[in-house]
Amino acid sequence: MEIPVIRNVLEANGKMAAQLRALFARHGVLVLNLISSPGAGKTSLLERTLSDLREEFRMAVIEGDLQTDNDARRVAATGARAVQINTEGGCHLDSNMVMDALAQLDPAAMDILFIENVGNLVCPVEFDCGEDAKVALLSVTEGDDKPEKYPLLFNLAACMVLNKVDLLPHVDFDMGRARDFATRLNKDLTICEVSCRTGQGLEDWYGWLRQQRAAKKSA
Amino acid sequence: MEIPVIRNVLEANGKMAAQLRALFARHGVLVLNLISSPGAGKTSLLERTLSDLREEFRMAVIEGDLQTDNDARRVAATGARAVQINTEGGCHLDSNMVMDALAQLDPAAMDILFIENVGNLVCPVEFDCGEDAKVALLSVTEGDDKPEKYPLLFNLAACMVLNKVDLLPHVDFDMGRARDFATRLNKDLTICEVSCRTGQGLEDWYGWLRQQRAAKKSA
Repeated sequence: MEIPVIRNVLEANGKMAAQLRALFARHGVLVLNLISSPGAGKTSLLERTLSDLREEFRMAVIEGDLQTDNDARRVAATGARAVQINTEGGCHLDSNMVMDALAQLDPAAMDILFIENVGNLVCPVEFDCGEDAKVALLSVTEGDDKPEKYPLLFNLAACMVLNKVDLLPHVDFDMGRARDFATRLNKDLTICEVSCRTGQGLEDWYGWLRQQRAAKKSA
Repeated sequence: MEIPVIRNVLEANGKMAAQLRALFARHGVLVLNLISSPGAGKTSLLERTLSDLREEFRMAVIEGDLQTDNDARRVAATGARAVQINTEGGCHLDSNMVMDALAQLDPAAMDILFIENVGNLVCPVEFDCGEDAKVALLSVTEGDDKPEKYPLLFNLAACMVLNKVDLLPHVDFDMGRARDFATRLNKDLTICEVSCRTGQGLEDWYGWLRQQRAAKKSA
């Protein structure tokens, strides 16, 4: 009984996502959908990125949370445009919510739009939000087995940001094992090892961003 | 269109959960539903508990994962009975899955049944699995804002286990802030600060378990 309804929901979501994708393409906006467990560091990565690249790109953020506008406030403090979506308990963002948020954003005034999804390694992966690419964040404190245990995200993401590498000396995390699981799921995955706390490795992430943005612009 | 279907799903789940609850009550089994983000330490807490209390209680585990039987194998290595449920991408356990798993477990031969839910702070909270209590795990590496941002779990849980306190010197986590958010949501919440890695604080958790088990036995 449940299955046809879910299929309809995903179909409707896909149609709206296609409209979004066309809209973003018209303006040459690079759109990235950031997905991770709660607390992996999505907002911290955005804070760093929005500050460090502010002279280079015009960036905006759609913040998805069950409750609170804490993350939108953190992001707005960098000077970037931020729109908060509260899902009121909902476990993921969808393309309708992104379309609604666009009422408060001007695609003609953006080079990069980040969609910070609800903290959840499962449900957000299923809902296309019109993005060019999904970015998976994994913090080393979560364990090196997560790509194997939550494969769909790592299979579909274009980039995996391995965050909190400053904590590696204090946790049991086998970097080789995590990278091996992830690249077995997805041989084209770009992997950036970073610490949003110390700044270590962020240049790799910025390099990937620049490359994606250049490809989008010339498309 | 979606809402009546969801209501039906939750109603059907609730009916099966009531049957489970009656069955567990008949045998005096204490049932705990462990919920957290991926990598907060549910399996590590179980490994410790099953080893340390093996002379005291007869314990079994139902392991919920999207994929793999890694966690069931870790838990079974302690000598406890473990049944793996693979949700094949599903974001939570429900009462039907627990009923199915009971075909491989004998309620008359258990004092405590742990249900280790899928790693997800959102969806598992909505699905009653016939448990006596939900136990929320939060690791200090996830940030002190999580009770505020994911309130339903902390509102409904009877106990919050704050794990990985051995990493407190290396992260920005305000214990007072986390405790304050959580107890504002739920004034009866028991909070145990532990490190499953070092063993620190586990006696508090065991004390809570003993109390719950004694209350269930005499009910």
